[in-house]
Amino acid sequence: MINDLFLRACKREPVERTPVWLMRQAGRYLPEYRAIRAKTDFLTLCRTPELAAEVSIQPVEIIGTDACIIFSDILVLPEAMGVKLFIEENTGPYFENPVRTRADIDKLIVPDPCRELKYVMDAIRLTRKNLNNRVPLIGFAGSPWTLATYLAEGKGSRNFSSIKELIYTNPKDAHALLDKLARTTAAFLSAEIEAGAQAVQIFDTWGGILPPDEFREFSLRYIEQVLKLLKHNGAPAIVFCKNCGHSLEAIADTGCSVVGIDSSIDIEKARMLIGSYTALQGNLDPALLYAGPDRIREGVKRILGKFGKGSGHIFNLGHGVLPDTPVGHVKAFVQAVKEESAKYHK
Amino acid sequence: MINDLFLRACKREPVERTPVWLMRQAGRYLPEYRAIRAKTDFLTLCRTPELAAEVSIQPVEIIGTDACIIFSDILVLPEAMGVKLFIEENTGPYFENPVRTRADIDKLIVPDPCRELKYVMDAIRLTRKNLNNRVPLIGFAGSPWTLATYLAEGKGSRNFSSIKELIYTNPKDAHALLDKLARTTAAFLSAEIEAGAQAVQIFDTWGGILPPDEFREFSLRYIEQVLKLLKHNGAPAIVFCKNCGHSLEAIADTGCSVVGIDSSIDIEKARMLIGSYTALQGNLDPALLYAGPDRIREGVKRILGKFGKGSGHIFNLGHGVLPDTPVGHVKAFVQAVKEESAKYHK
Repeated sequence: MINDLFLRACKREPVERTPVWLMRQAGRYLPEYRAIRAKTDFLTLCRTPELAAEVSIQPVEIIGTDACIIFSDILVLPEAMGVKLFIEENTGPYFENPVRTRADIDKLIVPDPCRELKYVMDAIRLTRKNLNNRVPLIGFAGSPWTLATYLAEGKGSRNFSSIKELIYTNPKDAHALLDKLARTTAAFLSAEIEAGAQAVQIFDTWGGILPPDEFREFSLRYIEQVLKLLKHNGAPAIVFCKNCGHSLEAIADTGCSVVGIDSSIDIEKARMLIGSYTALQGNLDPALLYAGPDRIREGVKRILGKFGKGSGHIFNLGHGVLPDTPVGHVKAFVQAVKEESAKYHK
Repeated sequence: MINDLFLRACKREPVERTPVWLMRQAGRYLPEYRAIRAKTDFLTLCRTPELAAEVSIQPVEIIGTDACIIFSDILVLPEAMGVKLFIEENTGPYFENPVRTRADIDKLIVPDPCRELKYVMDAIRLTRKNLNNRVPLIGFAGSPWTLATYLAEGKGSRNFSSIKELIYTNPKDAHALLDKLARTTAAFLSAEIEAGAQAVQIFDTWGGILPPDEFREFSLRYIEQVLKLLKHNGAPAIVFCKNCGHSLEAIADTGCSVVGIDSSIDIEKARMLIGSYTALQGNLDPALLYAGPDRIREGVKRILGKFGKGSGHIFNLGHGVLPDTPVGHVKAFVQAVKEESAKYHK
């Protein structure tokens, strides 16, 4: 491994500087990505290992990130469970048949990820080969709760009425769905690691729509189940729950190596609470990259200063990079982290 | 005043039971409201004191809430500053000309609320008269930050690019806009109190899109300015910042009487942090009202138990009541609070 800063920081081992990558770093803000997407729709891109590998590696080469994340989508997993998925420009993804009743839940299959999602594993193998150990490769999945939310709503939602109606009026069925999703997710992430992913991230995009007690019962409990069933083979697991600052300690207690934090969390407080036993990943406001390089550097310095000296920090945004971010600003962000962080590791 | 439980709880004075009302209680879930809206568009309803008074009082009579909130919209205030507002079914509100540049900001007028928003004051006077002191009347406004967000975006937003670009690239202009909005809001709320509002609530719907430091700089600071300029005349002020659990103590420090909390906050923790010097309002998940009366009662009991004995709690939802909530469930919610809370006040 030529650059293993990311993996060392995940394990809270000493590093020469803070590693940095960006959520959604393989994406629309890159002209090179848009050039490929102009010829290929989103799902075909996910399903074509050569293209998925190419766009995964783009930010490593163009932006200089310290980690590569496999290009894919969290919804390819529920699709492999038998729910037809559509991803169209401008409307966002949707499922033809939402999953809301016990019959819907029972119909979902638990796929063999090495068969039904072979294209993801092929993309991981090819990306590892083409990366040639320049930086580590991250695999990922949605949390069971987040997948359940998409399945129940069927499409983007404002009030999340369907999934909330399910948990409040029919918690038993909700638990049956979440259990099935947890098993599937554990098998999927284990297969990703087997195929070559050197770390995995679980995205709990919708944990934050729940009150704290329900967050623990319906989301965190199943993230824990995934981590327990995971054949991790030494690969660190990152858990990123958006808008769940109320439960930082509980998230750290799932047994993950790294807690991803969004921009609503003060990283100084987070380190105080859980930094002695987990690494932290985050958390610059993605919208700060609209500003010029000087302002970006100031924001980077503030977060580095708040985290303070020592290892256990992976720099990232608090959420995915916004599609209309100027590429030059993304480069300035990565550069600023690389230049400003060394002094915290002496 | 026949029922002043709400006002006493705002001041943390003893009460016989916990008072209860619902955010958006005058709204679409009520058939009586929909009957009026079938004949009148939303803005006309806001601008017609007789109708606004009628729908404001509906939930007091039909649901039995312990407070009445004047029917209006937070966007009528920026409209009075000279930005044409459209509210259409299904698309949500939008402004024809978003406010993004210094020139846009300088063009905004600071209206005299007793003239440009006389219809709101008339509605308040008429509602007070028709309420005949059955329950107290609450006036409200958006926070300066929330209004600035709507003004800059012009319409609903996913990433809030425009307002964030403004604060990160041009903080001076952002502060000029926020200062103007704070002055206008203070004058508006003072006029509402003068017209008869017995309490006021400031809704900071979009404070939660900011990192904690920026929340204090761009949102909380201007809520503080509003409260400082307010001629409150004894009327308690409630501050409700959505998704801002990271800054509970700072919110309490604005000098408000009541902190409104959303469902992401554990009310037991909130009371521990700030309950000795402010009252708390909240915080049942609105989606729990999809469930039946027994489950609703169980949720109410859990929150009452978490808050514990003593005054200083106004029961509410953690966010507005959802339009597709069955009326019977809303009644069951209010009934459950009334029946279950008495034992916490002995």
